[in-house]
Amino acid sequence: MKLCIIGIGLLGGSFALGLKETIPDLTVIGVDNNPEHARKALDLKIVEQIMPLEAAVSIADLVALASPVNAIVALLPRVLDLVAPSAVVIDFGSTKELICSAVQHHPKRDQFVAVHPIAGTEYSGPEAAFATLLKEKTMIICEPEKSSPTALTLIKELCHNLEMRVSYMDATSHDLHLAYVSHLSHISSFALGITVLEKEKNEQNIFDMAGSGFSSTVRLAKSSPDMWAPIFTQNGRNISEALRNYIEILQNFKEIIDNQDEKKSYALMQEANEIRRILQGIK
Amino acid sequence: MKLCIIGIGLLGGSFALGLKETIPDLTVIGVDNNPEHARKALDLKIVEQIMPLEAAVSIADLVALASPVNAIVALLPRVLDLVAPSAVVIDFGSTKELICSAVQHHPKRDQFVAVHPIAGTEYSGPEAAFATLLKEKTMIICEPEKSSPTALTLIKELCHNLEMRVSYMDATSHDLHLAYVSHLSHISSFALGITVLEKEKNEQNIFDMAGSGFSSTVRLAKSSPDMWAPIFTQNGRNISEALRNYIEILQNFKEIIDNQDEKKSYALMQEANEIRRILQGIK
Repeated sequence: MKLCIIGIGLLGGSFALGLKETIPDLTVIGVDNNPEHARKALDLKIVEQIMPLEAAVSIADLVALASPVNAIVALLPRVLDLVAPSAVVIDFGSTKELICSAVQHHPKRDQFVAVHPIAGTEYSGPEAAFATLLKEKTMIICEPEKSSPTALTLIKELCHNLEMRVSYMDATSHDLHLAYVSHLSHISSFALGITVLEKEKNEQNIFDMAGSGFSSTVRLAKSSPDMWAPIFTQNGRNISEALRNYIEILQNFKEIIDNQDEKKSYALMQEANEIRRILQGIK
Repeated sequence: MKLCIIGIGLLGGSFALGLKETIPDLTVIGVDNNPEHARKALDLKIVEQIMPLEAAVSIADLVALASPVNAIVALLPRVLDLVAPSAVVIDFGSTKELICSAVQHHPKRDQFVAVHPIAGTEYSGPEAAFATLLKEKTMIICEPEKSSPTALTLIKELCHNLEMRVSYMDATSHDLHLAYVSHLSHISSFALGITVLEKEKNEQNIFDMAGSGFSSTVRLAKSSPDMWAPIFTQNGRNISEALRNYIEILQNFKEIIDNQDEKKSYALMQEANEIRRILQGIK
């Protein structure tokens, strides 16, 4: 089986490495417009070869678009134009509405399966990839009814190989929920990082006074702007709503603190504590 | 050596367990107004005995106040009244200004060392305690000039036993910096938890769609309201300022996203990425 990965970073690289462990005859062809990433992917044996997009896509059994979401929207129709009639195309974008609508009328739409693996770290590039990133994580498949049964079966089999759970969702719901449970977390973390950096000009204070709690909350502020800037644009409407709600709750907190209303701040925290029950289910 | 711990939770319990490993003749006496915590502390061998406050404090060589900060402010003057002239008193409060001012004119002020161990988890109670919590963490000593050299020497020796770094700071600076690098993180996390819980009435969506990024960012939302409500009151002025700055940056992010201004969101994230350098130094 020939797998073509477009954008050999954390997610594309981990997908390839994970599949190599269970599919002995897998050949991975990498496509990357960053020559440094391409070279590293070869060195790290994530890919067997690097090829130009057209050549790679036309000989692939499976093409995975693992680039930032703006590049996915731009490349996906062209990739579908180029693939063999038996090939399957997937994308790993963290947004789904715009990506799905970019190919909604494409004659080969049914060869495409819109997926989103709920996995990642704050690191990026091929050196961040590892074989077990996707293990026991959720793969969301959007608009499964628009993909052919053959294509869906292949993707479900690969998820099984990777020990992933499969979940289904329409693209609109996906983008709305993701704004809350993923995109908002990133913005809260980016903003926390900026707030602290702007205040603490003397970095020694941060070293001395920040504990594991701060590290955990601000971890996502290390994430790649290349990946996130296009997500914020594509899912802007939902993220804006999530941010408005988040800011409102923070303002409520601030007012309660300004009023020294310990009863109300206690009640707010108790409400937040409900998250304990839910986090037990998330790895 | 007789150590009296008032409030045998995560921090008090871990302090006792850590010291037991290097001080063979240490006897730990627990004081706790929660009988369940007292019993657990005995069961877990964190303390050798449970005693009423007056009795425990009057025979102790070292008293550590490890209760919520409102209880510390209320108890500290009384504890100083009761201790032997050779005893040392410390508190582990996450705020320092009000605690220090509560005993600023106390005749035994120099027997008190105001410390803050920068360590913790989102869990609380004696069962959350473990011997290495404080290892390689920072102990901030506030107003060292108001403590006697003997008292300071003892505390520095104990920090050495626990393999902690010692750092010095005045109480006002401590509270200001802590508002940014610790208290704000907690509020951002509590608010994130509430935002997501209020939106996602169907919890299955959170299970399916939230990844490790969300878990990390929202982890502190599991923290104890008993501990945090009084901190928010005591450090209200600084936290309010930190929150105002944080909300401003979030509003800026929202405006940029509403305007689909990818260049500006990219630049903001690059600014936040600076935190990478600093997090390398924090365990």
